[in-house]
Amino acid sequence: MTDSGFSHQRHKPAADLPGARELVIACPPMRSNVNLSRIVRAAGCCGVTRMIVCGRPKIDRKIARDAVDQVEIEFRSSLPPVLKKLKEDGYQLVGLEQATNSQSLYEFPFVPRTVLVVGHERLGIEDGVLNLLDFVVEIPVYGKPLSYNAATATSIALYEYCRQCGSYK
Amino acid sequence: MTDSGFSHQRHKPAADLPGARELVIACPPMRSNVNLSRIVRAAGCCGVTRMIVCGRPKIDRKIARDAVDQVEIEFRSSLPPVLKKLKEDGYQLVGLEQATNSQSLYEFPFVPRTVLVVGHERLGIEDGVLNLLDFVVEIPVYGKPLSYNAATATSIALYEYCRQCGSYK
Repeated sequence: MTDSGFSHQRHKPAADLPGARELVIACPPMRSNVNLSRIVRAAGCCGVTRMIVCGRPKIDRKIARDAVDQVEIEFRSSLPPVLKKLKEDGYQLVGLEQATNSQSLYEFPFVPRTVLVVGHERLGIEDGVLNLLDFVVEIPVYGKPLSYNAATATSIALYEYCRQCGSYK
Repeated sequence: MTDSGFSHQRHKPAADLPGARELVIACPPMRSNVNLSRIVRAAGCCGVTRMIVCGRPKIDRKIARDAVDQVEIEFRSSLPPVLKKLKEDGYQLVGLEQATNSQSLYEFPFVPRTVLVVGHERLGIEDGVLNLLDFVVEIPVYGKPLSYNAATATSIALYEYCRQCGSYK
């Protein structure tokens, strides 16, 4: 313990969740498996247990760490069919994207039963998926570059979801 | 424009800031220049213009993008002298770390004039720096792995600072 009362605690226990996280993360085919693996790690930290990923990308265990044991990843050939099914199951479909009519992440009220739809690093969310979304949120940017890295943006949106919906002991 | 009214907008203009960001980011010698470069990119997105970095690490322009033209990076041999000076100049020193007596980032009220002190990927914030801090904040974690990547954690803390202190038009 330092004089200030602060002392580094490696591997502090996780906070309890009142129940299973209802959040699902849906990713298009990504340009970078590094970004995808980083998203898996952040999802693990947030207590997420379900991700939908397009194609058959390799998740890098050195990046995703033991999130790979917690997050169940469903591989699909495309997003629209599974998104339609999730919508029928009562999920709200929220895209993360700089788009026309996107709302600031600051003010967007998440519902627990949400699918967070991530955009491709360069191409964003394709029109066939945009058409299915209930809302699109974006993270305010104040300088250059004019957008966050896709994995960083996803991690920030996950944080905001947890801040609103999570419990912290 | 899609039927839903959502359409991808690449390079949407940045939000205006009422004045220069007062936030300063202070980094110890980091294990990974990739992480450091990712922090520079996120800092750029947040409108940050000043970072203090230990040693003479190479910032990867392909990762940091044009943040390298906006964020002025001061290279120092160690953090304590410059942190003491910043404290005298009225900055609040806030560490980002899982530590004893750390507060949840959810509830921590940032003041605009803040130095965000980042921890080393493995070693966290060293005791000589912890001793100088006014507060330590941590991001709640709900699953595995039990901690965020250092650059991801920093980006999330920057987001929370901007959410509280930033303006969004």
